[in-house]
Amino acid sequence: MTSTENATRNGVDTATLFATLDAVRADADLAKFQFRATNRWLSGTHNRSTIHGFHGAKQEMTHRQPFTFDADHPPVLVGSDNGPTPVEYLLHALAACLTAGIANVAAARGVALTEVSSTVEGDIDLLGILGLSDEVRNGYQQIKVSFLVRGDDPEKLRAVVEQSCRRSAVFDVLTNGVPVSIDVSTD
Amino acid sequence: MTSTENATRNGVDTATLFATLDAVRADADLAKFQFRATNRWLSGTHNRSTIHGFHGAKQEMTHRQPFTFDADHPPVLVGSDNGPTPVEYLLHALAACLTAGIANVAAARGVALTEVSSTVEGDIDLLGILGLSDEVRNGYQQIKVSFLVRGDDPEKLRAVVEQSCRRSAVFDVLTNGVPVSIDVSTD
Repeated sequence: MTSTENATRNGVDTATLFATLDAVRADADLAKFQFRATNRWLSGTHNRSTIHGFHGAKQEMTHRQPFTFDADHPPVLVGSDNGPTPVEYLLHALAACLTAGIANVAAARGVALTEVSSTVEGDIDLLGILGLSDEVRNGYQQIKVSFLVRGDDPEKLRAVVEQSCRRSAVFDVLTNGVPVSIDVSTD
Repeated sequence: MTSTENATRNGVDTATLFATLDAVRADADLAKFQFRATNRWLSGTHNRSTIHGFHGAKQEMTHRQPFTFDADHPPVLVGSDNGPTPVEYLLHALAACLTAGIANVAAARGVALTEVSSTVEGDIDLLGILGLSDEVRNGYQQIKVSFLVRGDDPEKLRAVVEQSCRRSAVFDVLTNGVPVSIDVSTD
C-alpha cells in the first residue's frame, strides 16, 4: 500500500479502490445498495426507463444526471424500432459488468490493459414468448461472450477475466437467477 | 379476425401481430433469433456497448441505427458516473420487457390501456462483488417491480400483467437463469 497509494492504473483510481474496501471492511452496512429504474409506457412496445436515484453507503444518492433509455421491438417483431429490445439490454449489461470487473481486477493486481472488447450473443427461440410452444422457454437458451483482451502477459489477462466472472453481479444474476416479485396497482 | 384486421390498439398493430403469429405457426424457423451487443472498454469502469445487428426470421437484420450505451460506476463505487451501472440496466430491461408484453397482450385481448408505469428496485449487498464475503452472493438478492396500470377494468388489467410475466423473456432469464459461456482471446 505504499507505491500504489496514489496510483491510477487502467483508469482505475486504485488508492480510492483500496480505501473503499477498507471502509467497507470496517462497516459492512456501507455495502448495502438498492438500485432503481422507473419506466413509462409510450405506445405499443415502445417504453422509456429513467435511472437516477439509488441508495448506498447509508444514504440516498443520485447519478450526476438522470439517464433515460428507450426500448422497443424492431418492425420484424411488430414494433417501431425506437430502441433496442429489452433482451439486448441484458447482453449489454453482461458485457459492461464483466468489462468493469476486468478493469478493476487488473488494476488491483497491477496488470496492464491496452484493450478489452467483447461480443455477446444470445440465442432465443421466440416460440416461447409468442405462446406457440410450451416446451420452448421464453428467454435466451444460451448466451456466449467472446472477449479480446490485450495488455499484459496472456496468462495474467486470462486470470483477470476469470476473476471478473467470479465476482460479477450481472454474471451471477444471469447464470443463477434472482427472485423477482411483481406488484400491480390499478388505482 | 374481422373487425380487428386493421386495428391498432394501444399503439400495437394487432393485424400485423396476428399475421406474424400465423407466419411463425407455419414456419417455426422464423422464430429463431440471435441478439448481439459489442462492448469496448474506455477507461476504468467506463465502457460502451453498441447494439445494431441481429439475426431473425432467417436473415441478418439491423436496427435502423446503431444504438450505443455507456456504463460506468458512480464515484461512491470508484467510477466517473459516465452512465448507469450494469446492474441498473438489468432493471431497465425487466421493466421494458414486461411493459412491452403488457401492451401486446392487452392489444391482443382488446383491453384498453391509458397508462403503464413501473418502478423496479434491486437490493444488492456489495460484500459479494467486493470479495469481502463468500456468503453473500454477487448479484441482486431480490428484485421488486411495482406497476401502475390504468385503462380497462382492473381485473382485466391484472390478468394482462400476469400473462405478460408468464411470457416475458427477461423475466424468465432473471428468475430462472441462463447458461453463459465465456471465451477469451489475447491475440
